[in-house]
Amino acid sequence: MQKENVDVLIIGGGPAGGVCAVTAKMNNPEKVIMVIREHAQQLVPCSIPYVFGNTLKTVENGLGSCAQAEEMGIEARLGKVKDIDIDNKIAYYDDKAIVFDKLVFATGSVPFVHASLQHSCTLDGVFTIVKNVERIRKLKAYTEDKQNIIIVGSGFIGIEIAIEFAEAGKNVKVIGGSEYILNRAFDTEIAQEAQALMEQRGVEYVGSDRVVEIIDKNNDNIVNAVKLKSGKIIDAEVVILATGYQPNTDLADKVGLSLGHYGGIWVDDYMRTYHKDIFAVGDCTARRGFLSKAPSKVMLASTSSAEARVAGTSLYGIKYLKGMSGTISIFSTKIGDTVFASAGVTADKAELKTNKMIVIGAFWGLNRHPAKIPNAHRQYVKLIVSKHGGQILGGQVIGGDEAGEMINLIGHIIESGQSVYNIMSMQVATQPMLTSAPTSYPLIMAAIMAIKEIEG
Amino acid sequence: MQKENVDVLIIGGGPAGGVCAVTAKMNNPEKVIMVIREHAQQLVPCSIPYVFGNTLKTVENGLGSCAQAEEMGIEARLGKVKDIDIDNKIAYYDDKAIVFDKLVFATGSVPFVHASLQHSCTLDGVFTIVKNVERIRKLKAYTEDKQNIIIVGSGFIGIEIAIEFAEAGKNVKVIGGSEYILNRAFDTEIAQEAQALMEQRGVEYVGSDRVVEIIDKNNDNIVNAVKLKSGKIIDAEVVILATGYQPNTDLADKVGLSLGHYGGIWVDDYMRTYHKDIFAVGDCTARRGFLSKAPSKVMLASTSSAEARVAGTSLYGIKYLKGMSGTISIFSTKIGDTVFASAGVTADKAELKTNKMIVIGAFWGLNRHPAKIPNAHRQYVKLIVSKHGGQILGGQVIGGDEAGEMINLIGHIIESGQSVYNIMSMQVATQPMLTSAPTSYPLIMAAIMAIKEIEG
Repeated sequence: MQKENVDVLIIGGGPAGGVCAVTAKMNNPEKVIMVIREHAQQLVPCSIPYVFGNTLKTVENGLGSCAQAEEMGIEARLGKVKDIDIDNKIAYYDDKAIVFDKLVFATGSVPFVHASLQHSCTLDGVFTIVKNVERIRKLKAYTEDKQNIIIVGSGFIGIEIAIEFAEAGKNVKVIGGSEYILNRAFDTEIAQEAQALMEQRGVEYVGSDRVVEIIDKNNDNIVNAVKLKSGKIIDAEVVILATGYQPNTDLADKVGLSLGHYGGIWVDDYMRTYHKDIFAVGDCTARRGFLSKAPSKVMLASTSSAEARVAGTSLYGIKYLKGMSGTISIFSTKIGDTVFASAGVTADKAELKTNKMIVIGAFWGLNRHPAKIPNAHRQYVKLIVSKHGGQILGGQVIGGDEAGEMINLIGHIIESGQSVYNIMSMQVATQPMLTSAPTSYPLIMAAIMAIKEIEG
Repeated sequence: MQKENVDVLIIGGGPAGGVCAVTAKMNNPEKVIMVIREHAQQLVPCSIPYVFGNTLKTVENGLGSCAQAEEMGIEARLGKVKDIDIDNKIAYYDDKAIVFDKLVFATGSVPFVHASLQHSCTLDGVFTIVKNVERIRKLKAYTEDKQNIIIVGSGFIGIEIAIEFAEAGKNVKVIGGSEYILNRAFDTEIAQEAQALMEQRGVEYVGSDRVVEIIDKNNDNIVNAVKLKSGKIIDAEVVILATGYQPNTDLADKVGLSLGHYGGIWVDDYMRTYHKDIFAVGDCTARRGFLSKAPSKVMLASTSSAEARVAGTSLYGIKYLKGMSGTISIFSTKIGDTVFASAGVTADKAELKTNKMIVIGAFWGLNRHPAKIPNAHRQYVKLIVSKHGGQILGGQVIGGDEAGEMINLIGHIIESGQSVYNIMSMQVATQPMLTSAPTSYPLIMAAIMAIKEIEG
């Protein structure tokens, strides 16, 4: 068997594996860094919804590039690692053996499907959203001549796909267990707005219900309908299960790495597993929340990238002390012209977790000023704030495109442990064509409102 | 003489006075708060450039509203305070006397005109940009049937007015002392881009020169041309002097308040003057830089608003300990579809002030991802970073509209004293339609590049 020696072996070529490789090489230019990935082409994960409609139009347009890794001299191999000899530090793929010094798992995630529906996944017309070019191509091709599409799951991916299909002229229904869509990232009043906009774009939402059966009436292995818990039966030519993901840890489990909650690989703040030379990054890890430190199911390429940067600089000792102390759950999406964004905990979640030890500060404004400026969009900022100390625990924004970066400001505020007392007099740049007025910048006003609540 | 008693008297109804009044009332609902302002209608200061062209179209569209102050029960008076008896705490306006407990100067700024040109300001066709509805109306009316406009001054206001006039079909030249426009907020390579875009929109820039004479050829009190230091003579029907502002402190000086550098009212971090019951906020104060603590000429409504919030909560004792420890000089503007934004010090300035103890981290990316997403705009982030410790001292962004809020994220990073070591693995939300890719988010990449520079 062919044997090769590398310094760092990374299993997986998604955002986590790619960023980890680049970061590792940048910090250790003299080391041999190798990435083994299963697929030659890699989809940018969050672009997947947009290949189905008018936004990206083709699957090809959703592909990422490995140019940077190549330029930097990172070794790339195509193949599937089937086994690892942990004691002797050897990974096996195809008929090859790679002897490594450091190993990084970046094996990502696979769709989660409720046990009761798993057997239906073999029916024609039933799909999950696998982050795989061929599978996405197949799904897109299958839907070309179909009209009635059901999306199961009301998270970001489900909603984004639903809207793309609807805008391409298809008849789309989303089925979700919660009363309103996107309920993990948004409080009710904001989720309601998002849902209303989605419905305006022709997507119907069937909420507070769930699929108990996927029906193949004619026994011809082709899906016809779904049956809901409520008894409702809804016809469908295509059923897309967008019911979340789970860590892809078959290999990690097989070779004996400790798994944490939700089946993810256990890692510490520097993405180290219990084995001193083995790291894990991205969706395959057992994540926890930044604030609560409780297990988290959040799976985001941006979180994975942050983890990969931490791992990439910590392989040969902890170079930078800022580790990854949990995900701040930071999201944004766009429905029509309106952006919805969220960071940290929602009020609903925070109330539960802190036993109501929170206050809310919220403010409606505009994303331009003065009010007569063309193309102004309403802008809403809601802050979830600790009653005791004023630390900002979460924020939600409704606005125009700028909300996509406003949430990163709020995320930074959360990550750096700032309080409303820091924000109430923060300095911002304001400009008529670009932001709200300085006198009523909604983030600052929301902080002021929260202080008013705290002080009663 | 009619005598009236109030708790807090605020002189000036611009952004500083307005925000201070609202904040003071919010924090002291039982107190009588009065604002005396000179004009019934108030222009939103940064909207002024946009009333001259197609963006706001009319002066009326640039007006601000006092509705919030009225609703809160803040007393408003029209008039000009002519004298103050500091010892007895009485302010005089028209034939009235107001006895106050606390006094806030929010008297703003007036255009700065070089001494050699002041006598020419009485010529027909020569204007400064006074933040006054009538004066702006007069300027706009005067230009209606004129074609050749010269703007003297290459700062934000000059450039924004120039572009608006050019887009409305006029022939516009900008004359500035620096080689490139906007040179206080941007380093050369960025200023060059801004200038090229301005020129594409039909504005000509005459740089590294200055107006030494404003010419009235026919001795009919109507401007015809300007003469430059280089000897060049440029014909003009309208000459707009946008050469900065100076604190409006005639009254403060008259009543004996201590003035600081550049003639502004001396204030401490809580906006208190040397007199224990007198505060000052906004452009009339002596500002200093956040990082260097050196005197600063920055005049921005957003900075004024932050100061006003600090003063408004500190009138009856320091309620919140975050004072105003200098301006971070945070700006944004839009030229065509491209946004230019800056916070903190430029590299040029930082090199000088720190004796080259800085490094630069910069990264070019896109504001959308993947690359094939429609309407993507290039996005560039440049960070100016302390070589010793990695603290972020300044940042500049070129991008789409989102850059208007990205600079507020960078501003917050500067204001909260964060370093590139905090930013390199920060968590962000990324979304194809709204942001760059998580794997190459330009702000994070710029931080990583700066670390590379520091570590050599």
